[in-house]
Amino acid sequence: MTMIRSWVESANDPAGDFPLNNLPCGVFSTGDEEPRCGVAIGDYILDLTALEEAGILRAADLPVFDVPFWNDFMELGPVAWDELRGALMDLLAEGSPHRETVEPHLVPQAGATLHLPVLISEYTDFYASQHHAMNVGTMLRGAENALPPNWLSIPIGYNGRASSVVPSGTDVRRPWGQLKAPDAELPTFAPSRRFDIELELGAIVGQPSGHGQPVTVAEADAMIFGFVLLNDWSARDIQGWEYQPLGPFQAKATATTISPWIVTRAALAPFRVPTPPRQRPLLPYLAEPGPMNYDIALSVSLAPEGGAETVIARTNARELYYSAAQQLAHHTTSGCPMNVGDLLGSGTISGPTKESRGSLMELSWNAKEPFPVAGGTRSFIEDGDRLTLRGHAQGDGYRVGFGACAGRLLPALDDPYARKDG
Amino acid sequence: MTMIRSWVESANDPAGDFPLNNLPCGVFSTGDEEPRCGVAIGDYILDLTALEEAGILRAADLPVFDVPFWNDFMELGPVAWDELRGALMDLLAEGSPHRETVEPHLVPQAGATLHLPVLISEYTDFYASQHHAMNVGTMLRGAENALPPNWLSIPIGYNGRASSVVPSGTDVRRPWGQLKAPDAELPTFAPSRRFDIELELGAIVGQPSGHGQPVTVAEADAMIFGFVLLNDWSARDIQGWEYQPLGPFQAKATATTISPWIVTRAALAPFRVPTPPRQRPLLPYLAEPGPMNYDIALSVSLAPEGGAETVIARTNARELYYSAAQQLAHHTTSGCPMNVGDLLGSGTISGPTKESRGSLMELSWNAKEPFPVAGGTRSFIEDGDRLTLRGHAQGDGYRVGFGACAGRLLPALDDPYARKDG
Repeated sequence: MTMIRSWVESANDPAGDFPLNNLPCGVFSTGDEEPRCGVAIGDYILDLTALEEAGILRAADLPVFDVPFWNDFMELGPVAWDELRGALMDLLAEGSPHRETVEPHLVPQAGATLHLPVLISEYTDFYASQHHAMNVGTMLRGAENALPPNWLSIPIGYNGRASSVVPSGTDVRRPWGQLKAPDAELPTFAPSRRFDIELELGAIVGQPSGHGQPVTVAEADAMIFGFVLLNDWSARDIQGWEYQPLGPFQAKATATTISPWIVTRAALAPFRVPTPPRQRPLLPYLAEPGPMNYDIALSVSLAPEGGAETVIARTNARELYYSAAQQLAHHTTSGCPMNVGDLLGSGTISGPTKESRGSLMELSWNAKEPFPVAGGTRSFIEDGDRLTLRGHAQGDGYRVGFGACAGRLLPALDDPYARKDG
Repeated sequence: MTMIRSWVESANDPAGDFPLNNLPCGVFSTGDEEPRCGVAIGDYILDLTALEEAGILRAADLPVFDVPFWNDFMELGPVAWDELRGALMDLLAEGSPHRETVEPHLVPQAGATLHLPVLISEYTDFYASQHHAMNVGTMLRGAENALPPNWLSIPIGYNGRASSVVPSGTDVRRPWGQLKAPDAELPTFAPSRRFDIELELGAIVGQPSGHGQPVTVAEADAMIFGFVLLNDWSARDIQGWEYQPLGPFQAKATATTISPWIVTRAALAPFRVPTPPRQRPLLPYLAEPGPMNYDIALSVSLAPEGGAETVIARTNARELYYSAAQQLAHHTTSGCPMNVGDLLGSGTISGPTKESRGSLMELSWNAKEPFPVAGGTRSFIEDGDRLTLRGHAQGDGYRVGFGACAGRLLPALDDPYARKDG
């Protein structure tokens, strides 16, 4: 597929994230205005709340863009999703007769504040990259027992904490927690010293499933509205002491940052690729009826406070052993109902090479091999570091990008309970 | 404390769950009416939505009972909670001058349908009973390694699935899932054969905490609005294969049943007791400033389809090693924000004796010692069985009860994906 040209000139930049082919969904505000729905086009945001108010755009009988989230629109379902994409193409395409009506509703991205694009209903985090599972398993249990016995059969996941999901640009504070050194008898309560990122792709569920009613992989695929970049900030030292036997809890509850733009499934359709070859036959309920992974180039950058940004990892979402559709289908096997606004993290995406590892723990091999950044080296995140995820699918002369998913680490509070005394 | 008598005669029954001392909060409907807020009093429900509409009761400047959940009221905070309790005492006490105004708004419980009392924001399940942890650990790992090393330091918990929480009376369908016998090489996809209950107490969070701001145990205690009985249905065979290394997932996602009445923290105040003696010193952030457990007698009954009910377990919430306030304080250590409507399950509550075990897995010692029920024996739940949790705190001549938390197990679907073909 080639670029679809727009009368918004900046949308026709072959290196830009937001051509007309993309039209990702976000929520933005300018000045003191209430946050509203928009889609990114070139250097601008098209204000859908205003278009709906002006009667230029109508997705349903009742307004769906008069709220600062995309949930109401997602509820309308795939036909409405396609219709909106078609209508926006029509409004924004080169030569469109609607340019004069639409142009007043373009807002420059520079100066706009971006918010969470959806009300997150619940957040589940998977563990779907085999290279990541192998790397972590090798560090913790040795190469022979690296992959858990169930890993090649189950898209393993755990429920995360939706309330801790924040939009790109939100500062994250280094957490306190229970830490126990391997040779210590008892834990201490102290700031995490091994705070990390996880480079993930997040799927946004746009349609519900019934309680007690598992869905097939094909149905699951159709329920997915789109994707975001996702950084699951992780306190490795808190996790090491807490996670047996019930899994990660506070180690993963400080924050999860997502990119402000939901790149729709429709925009990514030209970039579908199969999951990697199976190393063990899948149970039939997990079989994919077609390619359901995506060829999305991903990178992680680190900039120390006041320092330059270094790309520390490059990988690709096609490395995922289980697609988001497989993850979602598995999620419903027990009859668990899924809701509009559910967020499914893929788990850290690592590739086969050292440079393609999606977490600092892997990049520094658990602090044994610190890696270079501007002005020094890193094993884990230091206070003031800004971590940025980027991602895009590369088309023929255009790209479909996510924008940045960034966050800066603030130092831990001196005493997290100090306000009680003052 | 003794019974506070009401002009609602049935509220003065010393063996009833709902004296004036209690005033638990629920959501009910009759006939085709929309669900509305009410409190239980004797055999009746006092319709708060109607009282508010009629101007007899006013909790805030804006209506808070015009919605079918208690979240809006809980948001008002502890002063409003106390004021409502005081106002209802005033309206319902023996000799109240308001009887004539109020009586038309009493609805018989018989004939009313009870709904979820709150919009569950997120659901977390803890593992706070030492006897339960010891029993399960002994079965899985032997007596010497029964208790995980972190257990005496951390109120271990994991995030559950809020969308699967249902009110008492909802049928639960036996789930399908990946099962693997210890001697099998590969898993199969089949209905769970070891489906179980977990007898728990659930805390309803009524006030939020800030992102990045841990709360003390005293603050956590003040954030709790009240408690429900909670049955965390559990597929032991699905859990056994899936739970390493990220914890329980689909094994716990079929359903979690809660009692329809939230018994408020205020109603339970006379029944506070300390947590059991510490076997290892707690880190200071978990220290309790006063007694924060509750003396609540609990029971589990099982009735086969068409058969009589047998009480299969009796225990007490005072057995919990960590109180709900300690669980909630720990939940915020990483900066995780808590929201109004969050539900915290205690984990299975088991006592020291064989008869006081809060799950069938423990009662039958993993099917090695089936126990008697009407017309047979049980190791795990059979299709058609109805499981009922009950609980009450015993005062001097009165009790504060929760009502029943019941659910019946339906047989598994023959083919969970069959609708695709038909």
